[in-house]
Amino acid sequence: MKYKNNRLTIDGINVDFLANKFSTPIYCYSFKKLKENILNFKKNFKKINPLICFAVKSNSNIKILKEISKFNFGADVVSGGELMMALKAGIKPKKIVFSGVGKTSSEIEFAIDKDILLINAESKSEILEIERIARSKKRTVSIGIRLNPNTDAKTINQISTGKKENKFGVDEKTFLRLVDYIKNSRNLNLKCLSVHIGSQILDHKPYEKMLKVVSKTIQKSQYKFEYIDLGGGMGIDYMHNNKKLNLKKYSQSIKKILNKNYSKIIFEPGRSIIGNTAILITKILYIKEGFKKDFIILDAGMNDLIRPALYNAKHKILASKNKKEISKKTYEFVGPICESTDKFSTIKKFQKLKEKDFVVICDVGAYGTSLSSNYNVRPKAIELMIKSSKIQIINKRQKLSELM
Amino acid sequence: MKYKNNRLTIDGINVDFLANKFSTPIYCYSFKKLKENILNFKKNFKKINPLICFAVKSNSNIKILKEISKFNFGADVVSGGELMMALKAGIKPKKIVFSGVGKTSSEIEFAIDKDILLINAESKSEILEIERIARSKKRTVSIGIRLNPNTDAKTINQISTGKKENKFGVDEKTFLRLVDYIKNSRNLNLKCLSVHIGSQILDHKPYEKMLKVVSKTIQKSQYKFEYIDLGGGMGIDYMHNNKKLNLKKYSQSIKKILNKNYSKIIFEPGRSIIGNTAILITKILYIKEGFKKDFIILDAGMNDLIRPALYNAKHKILASKNKKEISKKTYEFVGPICESTDKFSTIKKFQKLKEKDFVVICDVGAYGTSLSSNYNVRPKAIELMIKSSKIQIINKRQKLSELM
Repeated sequence: MKYKNNRLTIDGINVDFLANKFSTPIYCYSFKKLKENILNFKKNFKKINPLICFAVKSNSNIKILKEISKFNFGADVVSGGELMMALKAGIKPKKIVFSGVGKTSSEIEFAIDKDILLINAESKSEILEIERIARSKKRTVSIGIRLNPNTDAKTINQISTGKKENKFGVDEKTFLRLVDYIKNSRNLNLKCLSVHIGSQILDHKPYEKMLKVVSKTIQKSQYKFEYIDLGGGMGIDYMHNNKKLNLKKYSQSIKKILNKNYSKIIFEPGRSIIGNTAILITKILYIKEGFKKDFIILDAGMNDLIRPALYNAKHKILASKNKKEISKKTYEFVGPICESTDKFSTIKKFQKLKEKDFVVICDVGAYGTSLSSNYNVRPKAIELMIKSSKIQIINKRQKLSELM
Repeated sequence: MKYKNNRLTIDGINVDFLANKFSTPIYCYSFKKLKENILNFKKNFKKINPLICFAVKSNSNIKILKEISKFNFGADVVSGGELMMALKAGIKPKKIVFSGVGKTSSEIEFAIDKDILLINAESKSEILEIERIARSKKRTVSIGIRLNPNTDAKTINQISTGKKENKFGVDEKTFLRLVDYIKNSRNLNLKCLSVHIGSQILDHKPYEKMLKVVSKTIQKSQYKFEYIDLGGGMGIDYMHNNKKLNLKKYSQSIKKILNKNYSKIIFEPGRSIIGNTAILITKILYIKEGFKKDFIILDAGMNDLIRPALYNAKHKILASKNKKEISKKTYEFVGPICESTDKFSTIKKFQKLKEKDFVVICDVGAYGTSLSSNYNVRPKAIELMIKSSKIQIINKRQKLSELM
């Protein structure tokens, strides 16, 4: 994402050109950025040599999964559908972990049949269900237990998952009891302690707290875990103000606990790998003069990108043509959906815009298309990827006829 | 929805029977309730003899639209896709109004080609665009202008649409200027004043305020509007505590303004027609003992029903088997999605539940399936309708293969 001669480009290709050629709205990914994120992630955690399982829930486009798998990534899946998608993308079963609080019996069966690396169980009931199915198949199934470390990720409430009032994982006491139970099971092989405290975390301190709890729990359990799955949650710089999670420091803290427990670390990053690789290119349909602000009505709506409506998330917005003149009125960027919720951002002192201009909503690679819907009977946007200066269509624009 | 011999039934059919036969989650509609709502709506507004245009955004299932159209309903559409759906359902073009702040040129063109009753324009720019297209087609197009009455619907913020800080409609001053503009246009025929103040309104007072503004604006415009489109927004009794909008009173207030202006009234109800006709039948996958509460983990998630996550909306939950024993712990009903947002309701003193039981989430007919998604690569639920004691499949369960 750079302005060249005042025109916004993605990997050297003009945004206006893409908008005119493919019509809007468009999700456009940068392969270069994706590769950069992957290599950067690997570099920062090199000393740990982790298994990195991409969180498919953040983006389940099969072409993207295929690209990611080429970098030796595994997958973190949370449903039978995601597991199927990951396998179709060519990700090896032995690099797939299955998380989630509500795995159905048929999903568990599917995971066992595919012989994936781990099922990370989230409750006693689930463990009993896995055991029941494993027994009926005369199998021994590798599982993890998700510990709820009761650690506040200090992020927004909606995406915090590691507090005791959240539905995820089990508390330490239950964890230790379950370890004992599984030790004596013929059909379960306990291999992993898993933990995940939330999303969009930019401060390494909650991670350090979490690691302390993990370390303490492992000691108490007196069990040798082959894997410690630390989940994901690494945040990205949505506001473009250089607030970044210090991965190096996080890595050092992990190294410390590994000195005491020799375990293979698993990560489940989603957002930090795919989040900043994509933009949503959209056209200004109308500019409507409001009372104190002008409404910039876009052709992308909350059906395309629901994060602002759902989490009150902020995404940077950029004009496709860089101009110096600043609008005197505040701009409210809204979508065409018949709901007040369909609003992306309110920005003061934005450059002056005009109708038919294109703007881009930044950093939409994670939880963009995966949460998109057909609300208002709107077809899903086309998805493009720029790779080696070539434009690839990685998902066709949905046709209206497909919705009838 | 009645308990018969302590078993929950919908139009006489056992919920457990449906769950076992079709597997869960299931959206199940009652045709009887739908008919009752339609006849009740008509009865309350009989003296006004309105054109009732069903708000397709609330539910765009084609089979449901077909049923509704048989009662002489028209459609309120907000996109080209919804327009196509309404036409496919057999709704006559001359009973279709097209609303929305962000109509694209091709959507406007489509509406003109289909010769629908009205395009309700929301901004000056849109009116110019309609005029431009009408001119190029040598047509005169019937339009309405949406007035923003600056009336607070006193409902939750996310679904309020009639305040001046909302993106919808134009203020009175702009409205009057636009009336003058259109009067002199060869290609536009101004037929309607449209207004809509929000959703889930249970108090008729905001409507009365709105009507006063409408009446005043019409007087000021000195224009004879063939139609006054009062939108929808009529709330339903989600909490089952008999809080109902007094439609009779609303009707009387409308009658008063019609004494001064002879216009045909258009309504755009969605929720009040379809909202309480459907339940979401779901299975308890696991019960997980939490710190102060038990988590009831369902196989329906926020991808099936996003209203609680998106609007903090409350839906009544009922067990399929009525039992007297009450749980000592609070129940938190959550979905299987890997997000803390995926939570339906927290209820104290609920009857004691056990795993594999079925529960139903009530009143999910409006903004249920229409806002559903494939998040976590989860297929969309099957939709059933009970009509004359027969079970109809009105939408098949999506197959995982369709998502690959």
